[in-house]
Amino acid sequence: MGISRILIANRGEIALRIHRAAHEMGIETVAVHSTADADAMHVRLADHAVCIGPPSATDSYLNIAAIISAAEVAHADAIHPGYGFLSENARFAEIVEAHDIAWIGPKPEHIRTMGDKVQAKKTAGELGLPLVPGSAGAVSDYDEARQIAAEIGYPVIIKAASGGGGRGMKVCEAEDQLETLMKQAGSEAKAAFGDATVYIEKYLGNPRHIEFQVFGDGRGGAIHLGERDCSLQRRHQKVLEEAPSPVISDEDRTRMGEVCAQAMRDMQYRGAGTIEFLWEDGEFYFIEMNTRLQVEHPVTEAITGVDLVREQIRIADGKSLSCEQKDIEFKGHAIECRINAEDPFTFAPSPGLVTSYHPAGGMHVRVDSGLYAGYRIPPYYDSMVAKLIVYGRTRERCIMRLRRALEEMVVEGVKTNIPLHRELLQQDDVLSGDYSIKWLEDWLEERED
Amino acid sequence: MGISRILIANRGEIALRIHRAAHEMGIETVAVHSTADADAMHVRLADHAVCIGPPSATDSYLNIAAIISAAEVAHADAIHPGYGFLSENARFAEIVEAHDIAWIGPKPEHIRTMGDKVQAKKTAGELGLPLVPGSAGAVSDYDEARQIAAEIGYPVIIKAASGGGGRGMKVCEAEDQLETLMKQAGSEAKAAFGDATVYIEKYLGNPRHIEFQVFGDGRGGAIHLGERDCSLQRRHQKVLEEAPSPVISDEDRTRMGEVCAQAMRDMQYRGAGTIEFLWEDGEFYFIEMNTRLQVEHPVTEAITGVDLVREQIRIADGKSLSCEQKDIEFKGHAIECRINAEDPFTFAPSPGLVTSYHPAGGMHVRVDSGLYAGYRIPPYYDSMVAKLIVYGRTRERCIMRLRRALEEMVVEGVKTNIPLHRELLQQDDVLSGDYSIKWLEDWLEERED
Repeated sequence: MGISRILIANRGEIALRIHRAAHEMGIETVAVHSTADADAMHVRLADHAVCIGPPSATDSYLNIAAIISAAEVAHADAIHPGYGFLSENARFAEIVEAHDIAWIGPKPEHIRTMGDKVQAKKTAGELGLPLVPGSAGAVSDYDEARQIAAEIGYPVIIKAASGGGGRGMKVCEAEDQLETLMKQAGSEAKAAFGDATVYIEKYLGNPRHIEFQVFGDGRGGAIHLGERDCSLQRRHQKVLEEAPSPVISDEDRTRMGEVCAQAMRDMQYRGAGTIEFLWEDGEFYFIEMNTRLQVEHPVTEAITGVDLVREQIRIADGKSLSCEQKDIEFKGHAIECRINAEDPFTFAPSPGLVTSYHPAGGMHVRVDSGLYAGYRIPPYYDSMVAKLIVYGRTRERCIMRLRRALEEMVVEGVKTNIPLHRELLQQDDVLSGDYSIKWLEDWLEERED
Repeated sequence: MGISRILIANRGEIALRIHRAAHEMGIETVAVHSTADADAMHVRLADHAVCIGPPSATDSYLNIAAIISAAEVAHADAIHPGYGFLSENARFAEIVEAHDIAWIGPKPEHIRTMGDKVQAKKTAGELGLPLVPGSAGAVSDYDEARQIAAEIGYPVIIKAASGGGGRGMKVCEAEDQLETLMKQAGSEAKAAFGDATVYIEKYLGNPRHIEFQVFGDGRGGAIHLGERDCSLQRRHQKVLEEAPSPVISDEDRTRMGEVCAQAMRDMQYRGAGTIEFLWEDGEFYFIEMNTRLQVEHPVTEAITGVDLVREQIRIADGKSLSCEQKDIEFKGHAIECRINAEDPFTFAPSPGLVTSYHPAGGMHVRVDSGLYAGYRIPPYYDSMVAKLIVYGRTRERCIMRLRRALEEMVVEGVKTNIPLHRELLQQDDVLSGDYSIKWLEDWLEERED
């Protein structure tokens, strides 16, 4: 038996990425697409294509009934959700499995647990992952909040339990602001997520974002594939990611990687996952777990040689991981630049007709993109249109190669953030790896002045 | 001091390849180009560009005076000749060095020795490389030829001393044909190369083409980087190359690689070189040495991780090799497909306007090409317009990945041999690695019937 035809419930570069892994395994693909994506590269390359609705994601890429129907019509025996859209929707995973279609993702209960930030934190703590000191769960009233904040010490941060993307988040410097900020955070959370629940944590002043890639076989076997440093962010959106992190020692990688892998063994986690930490002064603090493939997974692939999508498919197909922890070797350095169709400095989206496209090429340069000359980037979806991933034996050589790759990459007809990346790769702090999650926004602000 | 600006005395993908290596080392580039190549990718990307003549290669890429002038005008302190054109012209190398410009290539005397096939064979023998049994050098008369042929046994092959590309070559099955064929070979050689000198060798019925990549530091240090199997050829032109060879054992690689490296140490060879062998029934027979970078060098880069052009530049700059023999690890499998602008089955060249171009992308896929949509492939030069190089952990995975990469590669407006490669990658003999240098021509003939 085994998986023979995968429906790809996504679009853009990740749909193409999944198609490639499937074809390299001799597995057919079914593309589903909105009317806005009929000309997309992955739709052209897939063995079968089904239109599932109008441009609005709600009516197409988030339309569970349409996707399940497409899978049945096209006789797909597996569904890969990519990232975003329905990838962390536990209900969708359950429905897929209820239709006897293999779900290329974690067990629905783990998606659900990790999707609820309060529950995720609780679970992470039970699994032995280091937490940011703070409330054990939701904080319901001011007195409780005041007591917790006093224990962990100011500044603290108030966060929405159902939130993300910065909404419902407030940094509180002193007790006299606490009540007001809690109310504000609660009402913002209510407005954005329909849930006013908030929690309180130690506020880290200048942390890095370090995340560990993990992989479980669903039966108690699990490995880690090292960390990625994704500290270069703007408004909680990653811009450039690298592996390994310039600040994580081999000892810390082995130690924390093993803590993460052990947590996955204890959960009997299945498939790919990412455990995200803030890191400050040598300490890791769990923030969340993503129960899916990450945008930035190729930097891990570059330094380990492991094809993560292939492993996902193997696991969903009931096979074991193709490698054990002892087989994983970390070699060299990789950096990914997210290429977005947007103004490089105002960040205004720039959809439209791509009149000319030339990806970078040559040794150790990988471009994952559905772009082509004549393609019209639709205005309805995320602005990321390509990922440029470069490998080098050392971080320094990786950066030199990335600079030349950025020099030769051409996307015309729309604006892209390639000029931003070119400029970033000239900054001393980026070159030396000396940056926190606040660096990029500070730099952008200074640059404007 | 050190090299700070390299003039690239070549065109097409190899000019771009050299530009990339230079920029990754922080070195500027000077492109020289004929009037037909003003819009070429490497000319656009180079820091400086100088037009050196009309389309005819004789008047441009082979025009030594124009290239030296360009180097002086543009203040280049080094010249990289690429492959073909002037890359194996010892006189050019001498002139470059006489102008105090670093020559990114072997010592002129080694280019000269290895460029003369009779001299090369003699030198190879002295250096301990296994030779095809045959005449020690030129065979001047029929009686000598008859005696030698009788000693080594029929069939034998008669070859032009100054030749290449099959011209002046004759297979002789029995003594009664020998005199006639010698005369024919001699006059063909005279016509093609201006030199009627021929030699005689044992004729190998069904050999493979196996070549070893070597690298010398010019001071008696040298390493080998394993072999490439380039047996899939049509009219002595390589079509698809792979590393490692499916028939060479680890023991044979280590043993013959060391024989080659030792030969280079004894010569005090400098820079990159390739020692080509025929291989039959477990025996290697030296055929020639190329004193330059090969088209197919990226398959070696893929399985060793060593950037060969970077090493060439380091050596020319008086530095040592970046690695010793013990550091060279062979990992996985790589295959290169040469993408030519030609009819895939009649092989008629197909220059002209490229209306659409999309290279393959994704993990472990490398495309070296100067193509872009809107580029006009000039009719004056070699038809090779791109190289698709794919890596996999095993030969089988490499082939699966190569197939999917060939599926997604698009070149429109001109004909290319992509359909030939797609078909080749479906043939049982190619999949099992069971082919000699005659396989492709035989298959093409059968296919036509």
